[in-house]
Amino acid sequence: MKRRTFLLTSATGLMAATPPALTARGVIERIQKQVGVPWRAQTVDTFKAGNPDTPVTGIATTFMATFDVLQRASAAGKNLVITHEPTFYNHEDQTADFASDPVYAAKAAFIEKNHMVVFRFHDHWHARRPDGIMAGVIETLGWEKYRSPDQRGFTLPATTLEGLARDLRDRLKIKAIRVIGDPRLPVRNVVYGPGFNSLQGAMRSLARPNVDVLIVGESREWEGIEYAQDAIAAGQKKGLIALGHAISEEPGMKECAAWLKTFVTEVPVEFVPAGEPFWTPK
Amino acid sequence: MKRRTFLLTSATGLMAATPPALTARGVIERIQKQVGVPWRAQTVDTFKAGNPDTPVTGIATTFMATFDVLQRASAAGKNLVITHEPTFYNHEDQTADFASDPVYAAKAAFIEKNHMVVFRFHDHWHARRPDGIMAGVIETLGWEKYRSPDQRGFTLPATTLEGLARDLRDRLKIKAIRVIGDPRLPVRNVVYGPGFNSLQGAMRSLARPNVDVLIVGESREWEGIEYAQDAIAAGQKKGLIALGHAISEEPGMKECAAWLKTFVTEVPVEFVPAGEPFWTPK
Repeated sequence: MKRRTFLLTSATGLMAATPPALTARGVIERIQKQVGVPWRAQTVDTFKAGNPDTPVTGIATTFMATFDVLQRASAAGKNLVITHEPTFYNHEDQTADFASDPVYAAKAAFIEKNHMVVFRFHDHWHARRPDGIMAGVIETLGWEKYRSPDQRGFTLPATTLEGLARDLRDRLKIKAIRVIGDPRLPVRNVVYGPGFNSLQGAMRSLARPNVDVLIVGESREWEGIEYAQDAIAAGQKKGLIALGHAISEEPGMKECAAWLKTFVTEVPVEFVPAGEPFWTPK
Repeated sequence: MKRRTFLLTSATGLMAATPPALTARGVIERIQKQVGVPWRAQTVDTFKAGNPDTPVTGIATTFMATFDVLQRASAAGKNLVITHEPTFYNHEDQTADFASDPVYAAKAAFIEKNHMVVFRFHDHWHARRPDGIMAGVIETLGWEKYRSPDQRGFTLPATTLEGLARDLRDRLKIKAIRVIGDPRLPVRNVVYGPGFNSLQGAMRSLARPNVDVLIVGESREWEGIEYAQDAIAAGQKKGLIALGHAISEEPGMKECAAWLKTFVTEVPVEFVPAGEPFWTPK
């Protein structure tokens, strides 16, 4: 064998043995193929920080890429973070207005220094059928057997508003759950509205004639919250339970890690909980 | 005296003895003259329901004109309700999208049937110097002696984050207070941001170098709340306490009733608390 031929053969053999590293972009392309709904032209599901062509050492899924989550993910060797909610404090992750803010700057520098990439996976994980967030919630609560034909509806064993709130608090380990309505309200039919509930969402759910309780993540006091108060004052037998936004959606990102593992096998995939942000004084 | 002269004289006498009834519009015109800041062309401080020319039987001030507040105000003979926050579940009180909603329809019918008038007093009560909402909060908390030169800033006797949260909970009788940060954080300098804190508001307050704690009404979990979490993860010694929107502003509408009484003397003026919407299970 001539020296030139030998070198070429060796190079080819090396390339065959070491396939191109899996990049963040490569992972997202697989997600786009697997999610089962057409990828939208208008979506917040985009890269939020880092270079998409960075080779991935591991993947962390989370409710929200808080600075604390990023630190824990990086320490665990996961440099691709797939987050359900924003990284930079607003729905569009626009940062121009606070480019010199020290907290933002420290977070952005940490991402860059540790070769991390952050991708948001919100619209399409909800759009998947079944909704990926709801799939995780149903799994965590064990509510599959209670599902009603209505979207996000459940028919539970008979309880009261206080009984249901206590059960959710204990199962989801919530420190700061909040409830509206008569604690003794008989409850069977509930709607689970994960995350932020706009007025339109809260109104639509509470207006269903046979719905006793709407469970939300969060809703503003002059929007869905006032509407729930008024529905009760109008004589309707209704209640509302606010779990907190993180608590209400986080199981869906644990589900996301399990789903990713079915088609990403080259690197470890782990769910990194953001956790409830709040506590209450004793 | 000729008969014609007698009648004219009598009529004049009668008119002098019974001045024109005070209308809702008349009350608001007095507010506009008394509030001490120019009335804005663009403002949410407008009539939200009822006929402004309705004679006023009594005035109720409140944090939010919930259906429950309207029922209590009407039962107490107060047909003009001056509310800080919206009546119809959105900042602009736009109702076209849900004109046939049964809760909205019942509330609107109650207002009409009981000859009530609802006026929002938000922008100008905050714009007054001192801010009318803050004046009530400071009075209720007894914090006048702790005011710092900074807008909405206070330098308190040394405590901890948990100590401050407990004190606020007990003084304001809060069922569902929520806290972010190390319970043992030493606390002296706080900023009180009543009501909803946008990202910009929360960022501006927390970014002040010597501020230990930001006290808010409410802020969304992916906006001010995430920013507070990240400030702490970035190593800043900070905390955040969320009192709830109603709790954080209601004292300011009690203050409003006291202020109205100084220039509206023809009819009774009363503060009708909307109260905390939430409770937590035991």
